[in-house]
Amino acid sequence: MQALYWDGHELSLNSSYLAPDPSKIENRESRIVRASGRSVPADSQTALIKVHLAGICSTDLQIFKGYMGFHGVPGHEFVGSVSEGPERLRGKRVVGEINFGCGRCENCARGLSRHCPSRAVMGILGADGAFAEYVSVPVANLHLVAQNLSDEEAVFTEPLAAAFEILEQVQIDPGDDVLVLGDGKLGNLCAQVLKLTGANVVAVGKHQDKLKLIKQSGVRTMLLNDWKPKLYDVVVEATGSESGLKLALSAVRPRGMLVLKSTIAAEHHVSLAPLVINEVTVIGSRCGLFAPALDALEERSVSVTPLIEKVYPLPEGLEAVAHAASPGSRKILLRP
Amino acid sequence: MQALYWDGHELSLNSSYLAPDPSKIENRESRIVRASGRSVPADSQTALIKVHLAGICSTDLQIFKGYMGFHGVPGHEFVGSVSEGPERLRGKRVVGEINFGCGRCENCARGLSRHCPSRAVMGILGADGAFAEYVSVPVANLHLVAQNLSDEEAVFTEPLAAAFEILEQVQIDPGDDVLVLGDGKLGNLCAQVLKLTGANVVAVGKHQDKLKLIKQSGVRTMLLNDWKPKLYDVVVEATGSESGLKLALSAVRPRGMLVLKSTIAAEHHVSLAPLVINEVTVIGSRCGLFAPALDALEERSVSVTPLIEKVYPLPEGLEAVAHAASPGSRKILLRP
Repeated sequence: MQALYWDGHELSLNSSYLAPDPSKIENRESRIVRASGRSVPADSQTALIKVHLAGICSTDLQIFKGYMGFHGVPGHEFVGSVSEGPERLRGKRVVGEINFGCGRCENCARGLSRHCPSRAVMGILGADGAFAEYVSVPVANLHLVAQNLSDEEAVFTEPLAAAFEILEQVQIDPGDDVLVLGDGKLGNLCAQVLKLTGANVVAVGKHQDKLKLIKQSGVRTMLLNDWKPKLYDVVVEATGSESGLKLALSAVRPRGMLVLKSTIAAEHHVSLAPLVINEVTVIGSRCGLFAPALDALEERSVSVTPLIEKVYPLPEGLEAVAHAASPGSRKILLRP
Repeated sequence: MQALYWDGHELSLNSSYLAPDPSKIENRESRIVRASGRSVPADSQTALIKVHLAGICSTDLQIFKGYMGFHGVPGHEFVGSVSEGPERLRGKRVVGEINFGCGRCENCARGLSRHCPSRAVMGILGADGAFAEYVSVPVANLHLVAQNLSDEEAVFTEPLAAAFEILEQVQIDPGDDVLVLGDGKLGNLCAQVLKLTGANVVAVGKHQDKLKLIKQSGVRTMLLNDWKPKLYDVVVEATGSESGLKLALSAVRPRGMLVLKSTIAAEHHVSLAPLVINEVTVIGSRCGLFAPALDALEERSVSVTPLIEKVYPLPEGLEAVAHAASPGSRKILLRP
């Protein structure tokens, strides 16, 4: 069986990699223990998923630059079918939330296992991910995929949930002026999700072809070259660049809201004085719940498959990652 | 008549400075026009205030370093009595909100004249301030001072209102763990105001004597040297330093709130990744409404006079400013 494996220096196709059978699952759990100093709950149930498709995202590319100090199998966007696990799930298609909480702490009790201080995160922190033939996931994290959804659609559940997270955190009303900075995959999904609120959304980016994709889903777009200073009620920063952050700060109205969707590991050099003078609220936004994303996919209120650039078989995973890292590429998928 | 005057390079005692009589008030308004490109409303009424006491604050000290590019008479914390103005106010003691809005824009209509894009700000932007025998202030900005308040208490209305602004922006509940970073005047007032909510407030700073002052008002305190990492629901940054900002970011719980009270003109060098990963909300907080501050002063629920270090007569204003700029000084007041 095969997996892509990141040893902290090099990504390799590790064909001796064993699928996490029950004993491997124990190993995974003991890795969680090592990573966090705390054990997963004794009553946790883990399912073994045969991966159908996995998506490569910018976080994966940052991991290969050392972000999070992760070692192991990366990959946290996937759709698959349950190979081992509870009877009611066996053979069913599923997607899985990526934060594996301890199930015991205050955050887990509040439904915020994605902020559990001793969580593992699939393919990012203390748990192997989905760039493999099989991946093990706590049963509590799994969601069934409706029959009317293709694998190519369902594999977008995780990044789409991250876009929906904005709506869980910020009140956006019909008629609000909303700016999405960044025309990449994240910017695209955020713009589509924000449009669902009835807000006046405009997406701004540098790439005519990517903006065209966003426009096709009914969102107004503007080339960065045509940017004219204007103040928005809500600005979503999805460029991941320092210049994007500075532009975002300059485009929020007094008492407005700036949503940071990109995790940039580097230090920022910004003056926060305008933030204080204008009493702007800045809110960090990360992983979201899967339910609203699956609903939107089922209702086709959001369009995801035009974002796919190419599907690679897993044995060509190294080329796939190189392609994903090339400027201007859309979503690259791996099919084990 | 006398005023302290800042010409952009030097602060001087300008004894040829004329009190803003009606013709000077016209001049002030035309200065606002020059500063903002928009005129103040034709129906605005301005009162001439004889200044009883004025406070020197950190923003004033930053102005003398070039912040805001201000030229003119600084000073925005004051208490005085109405010398010229509407009959009902004449001779009455007043304090005044410092943002002079246009009265016509969307922000002014929403009661947010302190975010009016064409506002003047007393002693900071396009309007002379209170380090003078007289200052002119729009009547709409004035608040009567209750008889049971001394001038020494009332002069704290403006900085205390800035502390109360936090409660207008952030929901703080009894039992919340709240950290105030900074033991200066702003930190002191913020800690006292936050304590009124029933939250568990702790103030952290570097100065034993200043912490003692805070402790006297019933707030728990801790020397920075004794700091042990802990996560708080709400953190208020009132140090104005980059190290304070970094500590503040590290001390907010996931999904918690960081309130920035200090306007630092310099650029920050911080990694905002933890803000995204932990989905922290950062909110800039500046001037507040005067009513809750005056209420708290009248009810003696907040203690301000222990913060006074020394009162200087206006002719000794230059020494007073030097004293205010010396490390560790508490509030320096000017009496014209």
